[in-house]
Amino acid sequence: MSETNGPEDRLRLLIERIERLEEEKKGISDDIRDVYNEAKAVGYDVPAMKQIVKIRRMLPENRRELDMILDTYKSALGID
Amino acid sequence: MSETNGPEDRLRLLIERIERLEEEKKGISDDIRDVYNEAKAVGYDVPAMKQIVKIRRMLPENRRELDMILDTYKSALGID
Amino acid sequence: MSETNGPEDRLRLLIERIERLEEEKKGISDDIRDVYNEAKAVGYDVPAMKQIVKIRRMLPENRRELDMILDTYKSALGID
Amino acid sequence: MSETNGPEDRLRLLIERIERLEEEKKGISDDIRDVYNEAKAVGYDVPAMKQIVKIRRMLPENRRELDMILDTYKSALGID
Repeated sequence: MSETNGPEDRLRLLIERIERLEEEKKGISDDIRDVYNEAKAVGYDVPAMKQIVKIRRMLPENRRELDMILDTYKSALGID
Repeated sequence: MSETNGPEDRLRLLIERIERLEEEKKGISDDIRDVYNEAKAVGYDVPAMKQIVKIRRMLPENRRELDMILDTYKSALGID
Repeated sequence: MSETNGPEDRLRLLIERIERLEEEKKGISDDIRDVYNEAKAVGYDVPAMKQIVKIRRMLPENRRELDMILDTYKSALGID
Repeated sequence: MSETNGPEDRLRLLIERIERLEEEKKGISDDIRDVYNEAKAVGYDVPAMKQIVKIRRMLPENRRELDMILDTYKSALGID
């Protein structure tokens, strides 16, 4: 770093790094939205796809356990 | 309202109304958290309960349709 | 509680309590939105009001410290 | 794409694209958190930095207008 690199430059560099990363993150969010739009355009159900993405993130054994509990609660509450 | 009720008072009254409502809302969020803690303490599964609350908010026909689509996607992706 | 009050009834009571509280919370959120709409209708700036609500939530000394730091950072970054 | 590329494969490809993008997005969120931690470690104030990032996102004229309104509201409400 050059001698002129005082605390002000350092703050600017940190802020600019964050801004670039935020920009990149926004771009990826837009890409995700585009993929869902692409899926919707060919007839897929976006809420169901989002739930599938969430399900696939879970460990299989945790997922099976949650499904079992949900079924128990659904029948206890009369949800078919 | 008294004659001194200029724009400044009016702004204060609006802000104070919002603050009271925000306070009330926070109190209810705490109550909801307490009910879940109470349920957890007697052995209920909180994530499953939250999903049940979400499910019960849906119209039965929408729920059945989503379940059907999910089952189709799960079998297409080999999720048991 | 009556003898019929098995775990299923208990689950139902817990879920219904949460649903009532969620309903109440939604009502208050709507009230907050209405107050902001009322303020907007008579010429107040909603984003500024929201920032004022946030500022008033802070302890005065914390607020003054944050303002001082912000001023320092703003001048370091050439933000007038 | 091979002939076997039925709707199931297409769904899988869409889901896998979303998962890769979500993974990438998570990585960038972690990078942003790391930059803030780096800044904190050398003495910068993270809440103030986050506010600076928000401020720099605004058009200068909008920012100046908001500051003016905030000053007006602060003095109306006796916030020093």
